[in-house]
Amino acid sequence: MATSSDPASLHNPYFNLKPGQKDIWTLINETAATAQLEHPNRKIVNLGQGFFSYKPPEFALDAVDQALESPQFNQYAPARGNPNLLRAVAAHYSKSYGREVSVDEVQITTGANEGMFSIFFGFLTRGDEVVVFEPFFDQYIPNIEMTGAKVKYVEIQYPAKLDNENVTGQDWQIDWETLEKSINERTKMIVINTPHNPIGKVFTTEELHRIGELVIKHNLILVSDEVYENLYYTPDFPRPATLQSLPELRERTLTVGSAGKSFAATGWRIGYIQGPAPLIKYVTAAHTRICFSTPAPLQEAVAQAFGQVDKLDYFGNVKREYIKKYELFTKVFDDLQLPYTVAQGGYFLLVNLSKVKIPQDYVFPETISSRGTLDFKLAYWLIKEIGVVSIPPTEFLIEQNRVGNGLEKCVRFAVCKDDSVLEDAVEKLKKLKDYL
Amino acid sequence: MATSSDPASLHNPYFNLKPGQKDIWTLINETAATAQLEHPNRKIVNLGQGFFSYKPPEFALDAVDQALESPQFNQYAPARGNPNLLRAVAAHYSKSYGREVSVDEVQITTGANEGMFSIFFGFLTRGDEVVVFEPFFDQYIPNIEMTGAKVKYVEIQYPAKLDNENVTGQDWQIDWETLEKSINERTKMIVINTPHNPIGKVFTTEELHRIGELVIKHNLILVSDEVYENLYYTPDFPRPATLQSLPELRERTLTVGSAGKSFAATGWRIGYIQGPAPLIKYVTAAHTRICFSTPAPLQEAVAQAFGQVDKLDYFGNVKREYIKKYELFTKVFDDLQLPYTVAQGGYFLLVNLSKVKIPQDYVFPETISSRGTLDFKLAYWLIKEIGVVSIPPTEFLIEQNRVGNGLEKCVRFAVCKDDSVLEDAVEKLKKLKDYL
Repeated sequence: MATSSDPASLHNPYFNLKPGQKDIWTLINETAATAQLEHPNRKIVNLGQGFFSYKPPEFALDAVDQALESPQFNQYAPARGNPNLLRAVAAHYSKSYGREVSVDEVQITTGANEGMFSIFFGFLTRGDEVVVFEPFFDQYIPNIEMTGAKVKYVEIQYPAKLDNENVTGQDWQIDWETLEKSINERTKMIVINTPHNPIGKVFTTEELHRIGELVIKHNLILVSDEVYENLYYTPDFPRPATLQSLPELRERTLTVGSAGKSFAATGWRIGYIQGPAPLIKYVTAAHTRICFSTPAPLQEAVAQAFGQVDKLDYFGNVKREYIKKYELFTKVFDDLQLPYTVAQGGYFLLVNLSKVKIPQDYVFPETISSRGTLDFKLAYWLIKEIGVVSIPPTEFLIEQNRVGNGLEKCVRFAVCKDDSVLEDAVEKLKKLKDYL
Repeated sequence: MATSSDPASLHNPYFNLKPGQKDIWTLINETAATAQLEHPNRKIVNLGQGFFSYKPPEFALDAVDQALESPQFNQYAPARGNPNLLRAVAAHYSKSYGREVSVDEVQITTGANEGMFSIFFGFLTRGDEVVVFEPFFDQYIPNIEMTGAKVKYVEIQYPAKLDNENVTGQDWQIDWETLEKSINERTKMIVINTPHNPIGKVFTTEELHRIGELVIKHNLILVSDEVYENLYYTPDFPRPATLQSLPELRERTLTVGSAGKSFAATGWRIGYIQGPAPLIKYVTAAHTRICFSTPAPLQEAVAQAFGQVDKLDYFGNVKREYIKKYELFTKVFDDLQLPYTVAQGGYFLLVNLSKVKIPQDYVFPETISSRGTLDFKLAYWLIKEIGVVSIPPTEFLIEQNRVGNGLEKCVRFAVCKDDSVLEDAVEKLKKLKDYL
């Protein structure tokens, strides 16, 4: 145990690590690895974490090889970002937004995660408050709290009819009353995520307008985490930075993007922030201190890759591939009449498995049963007995909201996998029939 | 100007950016770029920032190409680090330390900069204090202050005889009295940098012992920034983690290393932390939140590169090359009788240029003259009139210690450049003769 002369007792009390405590990714990955070792002949199919099972496109890989040939792309890039990548990202947003975006409106970050962290550090300090919607991407919370600011939570409400039938993102409704009440004189920021992980909801123009009005009325900043910007399956993708009905919103909006998501390269850690230059400079200041600069050869490769996407209709092709992946994967749930949220964007599928009857006498380890929610049991049992890895989504809620939340009946599958992997998963999931 | 409805006024007050304010690197690089544009036919030789003018070794570059071929090395690495790299770094330290270092004693970070930041966040919170030696690497200060902790400064004192003759790192003496006084019940950490940037000092066993006694006595953690660990020119390199006279010090020591410095790849952003497992887990917790994971293909490449160094005697060869680079570069200062600190490690040279007479009527821009110290004028004038870029080292002091400090008579040159670059610099620096 820690004593006054134990150096470990000097740790930052924010990181209150309990013995044996594991983050969700480690817990699920280790469960899967153990299950695989127990049954070496039965392949466990991993649809848990949102990484791609395949390589980035060849044109992006070739661009890394080329960048490595140049001394400068092996050395520190400028803290703002490689100038070629700044130009490429500005051009990308100019095209997506339908208006000129200048390089002064862009900051390159070491992944979107560090990008969010840089935004939070650039603007937040002790005593500030930030509104975050639940379910949330788990990293938002510590990233905000590490600045000394506090999080206020507003629910995107589980639609009761998902117990029995498929729903869409629009059935998941923002708790507007709580949102309005949660804003006070300490509030500095609202964070949204569209397309949303894990729901797959694309925020509508009306929703963005209503949020935007609050942002303007209360002099806030809107952070729009749009890392799945190139993977939406709705006719269009409304964004706060281009909201026609509220053009002044763009002056308060910081948009977060990800080369990892866009080029199937989550391990490259290249993200970008777009926003008005007077705001971007504070993101730059924070990023410069946090990471100083972002990996140079990979920045140059992403710059070159962006130069290829139009010619190859790369993002269009990927979108069409993902529509097919969803078709391939959702059929098993249609056949079994297990309801899910039809994804409007991203690469996740949230499936309600409350009809699945886990045998009464099934024994769960303490690490699972101690969580107290059904989704952890479902995810564990799916790995062990069906051989498919998913993520329990109550992890994306605050602790006191987990038990009894509709989300605990669901698990999240990632479909950013080769078709053969999805086909294997479908074969395995067919066995669920025996448990309905 | 900021008004109550100006979103930029919402910035974190810590980042108090003044209009036109530039960090040292931007100021010097822009000055050099402007000078080059003014005289396109006269090549400006850049010995300013510590990046390499050449590529990483072929065996490291080839390892990136190979890593890119594998889907997994393009996707998220584990937050602790790629297991192959954890093993390689543990093996590297096992050999350097002469004792078994386990993978539990290693954390991979996104460059040593983010490594230091992760250490600070893992241990420091509001109200804590950290002792830092001046001159310091500029990023330490904001990285500590962003946690809410305060910095206490202790000087490594400019040796008066450097005005007239060459000195070594040992002539730069720690202000022991201030060090002892600066520690109080709020102190959690002492940060050292050996080999030291910009002095080139390698801390002696006696100095480490004396610092280590204070660390143990006051229940502190020692952070040893050893990013130049493979570039020391003394017979041996004393390290707090291996101090024979104070073996318990290792239980309180976090050692910081850099693949960027070790493999001439500052743009790859791969750093590592070695320390006792009970301390490393708090570094891991902070790093997981800050960057989540470190670029996967570059981690795998560094893992493979570490596997080649013994066979090729890579670090031995680099060290011998750098001894030659210093010989090549220092001759001009010997000839001109301009005194410098003989570097015991790293790749910088601190030269006293107080004998150089800048013409009385020479006009400096406001950005330079407003700094109020001689070194900024010397560095500016060297770029404009001699064509060689250096860094003014008072930037590594706190503001109130800059004017009148012996360091303001010096500039820092980086020798991590091709021999031909150093030869060009020498040719240009010969012109200083006309100004003595």
